Amino acid sequence: MKIIKEALFDVVVEILVALGENPENARIVGDNFCFADSRGITTHGSYLLTPIYKRVKADQLTLPTETNTVIDEGAIFVIDGGDGLGPVAGQKAVDIAVDKASRFGISQVMIRNTNNLGSLAFYTERIAKQGMIGVMSCNAAPAMAPWGGAEPFTGTNPIAIAIFTGKDLLFSADMATSVVARGKIRKAARENKSIPEGWAIDVDGNPTTDPNTALMGTVLPMGGAKGSAIALVVDIVSGILSGAEHAPNIKSFHSPQGKTGIGATLIAIDIKKFIAVDKFTAIMEDYIQNLKSMKKAEFASEIFLPGEIEKNRELESDKSGIILMDAAVDVINHYLDELGSEKRLESKA
Amino acid sequence: MKIIKEALFDVVVEILVALGENPENARIVGDNFCFADSRGITTHGSYLLTPIYKRVKADQLTLPTETNTVIDEGAIFVIDGGDGLGPVAGQKAVDIAVDKASRFGISQVMIRNTNNLGSLAFYTERIAKQGMIGVMSCNAAPAMAPWGGAEPFTGTNPIAIAIFTGKDLLFSADMATSVVARGKIRKAARENKSIPEGWAIDVDGNPTTDPNTALMGTVLPMGGAKGSAIALVVDIVSGILSGAEHAPNIKSFHSPQGKTGIGATLIAIDIKKFIAVDKFTAIMEDYIQNLKSMKKAEFASEIFLPGEIEKNRELESDKSGIILMDAAVDVINHYLDELGSEKRLESKA
Repeated sequence: MKIIKEALFDVVVEILVALGENPENARIVGDNFCFADSRGITTHGSYLLTPIYKRVKADQLTLPTETNTVIDEGAIFVIDGGDGLGPVAGQKAVDIAVDKASRFGISQVMIRNTNNLGSLAFYTERIAKQGMIGVMSCNAAPAMAPWGGAEPFTGTNPIAIAIFTGKDLLFSADMATSVVARGKIRKAARENKSIPEGWAIDVDGNPTTDPNTALMGTVLPMGGAKGSAIALVVDIVSGILSGAEHAPNIKSFHSPQGKTGIGATLIAIDIKKFIAVDKFTAIMEDYIQNLKSMKKAEFASEIFLPGEIEKNRELESDKSGIILMDAAVDVINHYLDELGSEKRLESKA
Repeated sequence: MKIIKEALFDVVVEILVALGENPENARIVGDNFCFADSRGITTHGSYLLTPIYKRVKADQLTLPTETNTVIDEGAIFVIDGGDGLGPVAGQKAVDIAVDKASRFGISQVMIRNTNNLGSLAFYTERIAKQGMIGVMSCNAAPAMAPWGGAEPFTGTNPIAIAIFTGKDLLFSADMATSVVARGKIRKAARENKSIPEGWAIDVDGNPTTDPNTALMGTVLPMGGAKGSAIALVVDIVSGILSGAEHAPNIKSFHSPQGKTGIGATLIAIDIKKFIAVDKFTAIMEDYIQNLKSMKKAEFASEIFLPGEIEKNRELESDKSGIILMDAAVDVINHYLDELGSEKRLESKA
């Protein structure tokens, strides 16, 4: 079903306010979810209303979200997320990171005691648009074995990096540190398809191509020992250094079995402190042109900048509507009904 | 052949001083090369005397190394490496990064106009030993196609991260952003062995398992599009933001065809600004114990901390001598002879 972005935004805000969030915070989360949905990253969009709804009803997410300052010193800042909505703490982190980077050249803002942050590119791109480089990572519930292990230990701890280019199209990478997201394995299971070797291991640590066996086992880190090391770094920095929880103590956001304990790290670098901005953007323009115009591999019709496919999808969604599964729209309408709202999400057509 | 570390250090210093470096700088480089050789990373150790020798003789490396301050503002610093020896600029970057991180919580030091930096873990571990987290990356000559491309564009741009643990054994990851180093492909070619699919592509961008075809083509990024994005980020930050050269303008250090133009980024994070150090080390001790005691995959007899295998090798080298190939020792002795030194490197036994 195709949905107009503004309509989706309205009902996300309506539901969150009905659950106890204040309108200003609800609008931040609405922006975050619409960003993900309009880019086709539906696992990080309005789908998250479901775990939020369950957690609020189970008294395991505190609304309205109230963040607090834990540390504010020099180029660093630590936010307590108040066990509220991740994007509220995340947007606060963006504002502080940009301010501190503009003063010190680089800044680091940590978040402890928060919940699922949605799409990290949402934050890094907001930093990049200020003429900066934004780097963000967060930890997550155990789903991945470290290299050599056969048990889930770290999450698929994502890292996002966005770089100002002087154009609408930013350089914007946003990746899990696993080979693939668990969602892709779930999809193969639903479709009775095998998965490529190298995606996951079974409960004994053996390679498997059976998606159901894989789902009982663990996903593998990208690049073997390399992705494993990166996921551990994310956990140590975002979890331990921030004063949040760390592997394997993090609880899944998707089932209300206690506070998640998620932590996040945000770093902003102010480009103009290093190089004249017009010089930087001129080099970047050449750089991107050289990158895109090179000889292609047989499998590739085009070389995309990181984030370019998602940006194209967003522009298409803005024009033709955001594609959501009918069942996902039904869930949102069900929540609206439950919460006494008369609003309903409807197909654009 | 097994060599005593102090003997290797002495001849490295002797050669560098004879080539025009000052003794203080030569000792930094000697430490750096002995660090790599004693860890078995011989591509980054005293082997680098060969390209240094060639470059000095070709007037393409300036000795003694004189670094200059380009920018010193807030938490950031930019060093001009004076087209000298990388480790001299790298050690200066470490000292500044540690000082600024202790004042601002986080710091970023960039190096432009330098040469091969040797093993990056050398620098990140020196930062980590100060109770900090050190992150370093540098760009390198084109060897890797970006995802979808069929030409070398970025280098195998390495990233190193070291974290203080309160113990001798640090958490110390140091990785190329390619699936494997080109050295492994060269080794397969020498031994007439095929290489696994996924390591490299031929000149048309097709997968190949023939090492010779691979060497004419390009190595592949770790994790496909993910490693490709990370390598580009390293190039943009270390190359463009620092005012150094960037892909594909970087020249190989290994043949004197003009200045390399290498740039590097060093970030230091002061742990005590975020969390009490004893609390951090206590959590890390538990964390590492949990990691190492988990159920193992079938292929693994032990779960190693990033850098642990290299540290074990270093301890072994300290005890029994550094293993160098006879031919490598012959080259060093040849340089000593050429430079009029009477010193010779000899087997420990």
